Amino acid sequence: MTDKTQLLGISNAIVDVLAHVDADFLDEVGAPLGSMTLIDEEQAKSLYKKMGPAMEMSGGSVANTIAGFANLGGAGAYIGKVRDDQLGAIFNHDMQSLGVDIRLQPAASGPATATSHVLISEGGQRTMQTYLGACLGLGLADITDTTVGAPKALLLEGYVWDIGEGPALARRAAEIARKNGTAVALSLSDSFCVDRHKDSFADFVRNDANIVVADEDEIYALLGTTDIDDAIAQLADFDALFAITRSAEGSVIVQGNEIVTQPADVVDNVVDTTGAGDAYAAGFLFGWASERSLSDCARYGTRCATKVIQQLGARIEKGLLDNYT
Amino acid sequence: MTDKTQLLGISNAIVDVLAHVDADFLDEVGAPLGSMTLIDEEQAKSLYKKMGPAMEMSGGSVANTIAGFANLGGAGAYIGKVRDDQLGAIFNHDMQSLGVDIRLQPAASGPATATSHVLISEGGQRTMQTYLGACLGLGLADITDTTVGAPKALLLEGYVWDIGEGPALARRAAEIARKNGTAVALSLSDSFCVDRHKDSFADFVRNDANIVVADEDEIYALLGTTDIDDAIAQLADFDALFAITRSAEGSVIVQGNEIVTQPADVVDNVVDTTGAGDAYAAGFLFGWASERSLSDCARYGTRCATKVIQQLGARIEKGLLDNYT
Repeated sequence: MTDKTQLLGISNAIVDVLAHVDADFLDEVGAPLGSMTLIDEEQAKSLYKKMGPAMEMSGGSVANTIAGFANLGGAGAYIGKVRDDQLGAIFNHDMQSLGVDIRLQPAASGPATATSHVLISEGGQRTMQTYLGACLGLGLADITDTTVGAPKALLLEGYVWDIGEGPALARRAAEIARKNGTAVALSLSDSFCVDRHKDSFADFVRNDANIVVADEDEIYALLGTTDIDDAIAQLADFDALFAITRSAEGSVIVQGNEIVTQPADVVDNVVDTTGAGDAYAAGFLFGWASERSLSDCARYGTRCATKVIQQLGARIEKGLLDNYT
Repeated sequence: MTDKTQLLGISNAIVDVLAHVDADFLDEVGAPLGSMTLIDEEQAKSLYKKMGPAMEMSGGSVANTIAGFANLGGAGAYIGKVRDDQLGAIFNHDMQSLGVDIRLQPAASGPATATSHVLISEGGQRTMQTYLGACLGLGLADITDTTVGAPKALLLEGYVWDIGEGPALARRAAEIARKNGTAVALSLSDSFCVDRHKDSFADFVRNDANIVVADEDEIYALLGTTDIDDAIAQLADFDALFAITRSAEGSVIVQGNEIVTQPADVVDNVVDTTGAGDAYAAGFLFGWASERSLSDCARYGTRCATKVIQQLGARIEKGLLDNYT
């Protein structure tokens, strides 16, 4: 294995458009608090017109994790599709400026770079309305021995299953990974996404994934339970390592019969919960790639998540785990 | 006067690209702390490549003031030039979503929408490197009876003098204003800008301006003094109303022999000083347009400036002066 990459992300490349809104606005839009809804170009235009002044920041769930991983000092790489427009240039800049190796060229035609309208309401809750745009063009042709290489791990997100060739490209990535001894990690994205692709996810988790990162609602949706002990018991039967975040109740790591529980840190001022799970994944996988204990991985993940919810925006700052033991 | 507009801004339409940097970065770029330097397209590309992850927000000095004025509840309008690109659409959206009447169409060709690279260093200090892009296309042809109309006041910024037809278009705007009984306000932008255009500014302040908004360094550069009492004595000879901000020493309003001094509010956590002067101008001119006393105008300006330095970004939130007496 000559590839120095520790973690390769394969996901939807998205620029977040963040604005504070009140509850009435969410009612008017018809967006359930905390949901992520896919919208088309016309809906995106109509929504944006209703929104107040916004700020733009690179986003995307697994893209946030890769950026965070690189910021912690890890060697990250990324496969995702932007258009050759200004937002695409912003997305790639923000990745490359962290040392992330961008593996695909921007698309020269087709829909614009994806935007997720992140509607931030009281208590830092976020509701997302996402226009996938250029992401829809990510396909099988983009997943090759050259673009994937032989990283220590690759990380897919559930949202990839929302694009036409998504399930097929995930399988191809897993095949290339298996050939090269690359571990396959999957982030389950959100519980609605799990509902949309439940059978395919269950199959992938059973047969392809070595690591699964998820929050408890996503795991419950996958397993058809609402009880954490029942979930843990079921997960013991899988071969994969599971990192499950539980908001204020911390996180729990399950690998067969080994169970590690990690309490959450107490936070007084939650500014914006965007990216808490993504940041946890960055810390957890940084620990994993550094061959730390599962307990250390869980602590790293917690520290990153704790930090990110106290700021506006989904990406953690540089060197957060420096001198953190 | 049938125009309901209270304040029309004429200025450089800019999207800010904000990133935290350390002192070494400023040294490497060769940017003096706190300065605003104009850069060309190649320099902008090179700088951006060196910068870390950034966030994008609509900016521009007088554009910030107009956005703030609208957010306070005033009727604002705006003349500035963006390109018909994604950043131009963001700039116009952020204005229009506040109810600001955008008077020009985006340019269909020519350079991209302007970007100001706002390098935020310790203590919230900001150093700006600005690529004027599409702003350079703002010209005499854009300043007509139709686009200017008959607002209660129009507000120009010193930075307009940095574009080719800037001085001429400022004079034309002042002529239209005089004809319609519109007050002419000028923001001096920064002391380096005053140095660049000192004679023209002195002439404009003497003959065209009814209101001048500036910080003390800009006034010192204009008058050739470094003493506030000397400056106040000199300003008493002008016909205009002067609002002078002095950072921690508050602000002073001078209109002939009438002098109003306003202390600053004590702020523990300065996050980002970007837009403090712009926010002051928004509050001050909102008071002026509402025909409040000079003392009230100064208090409004102070409240807006105090708020904006405690957040990241240059624009104040909606309704800041609601129920504030």
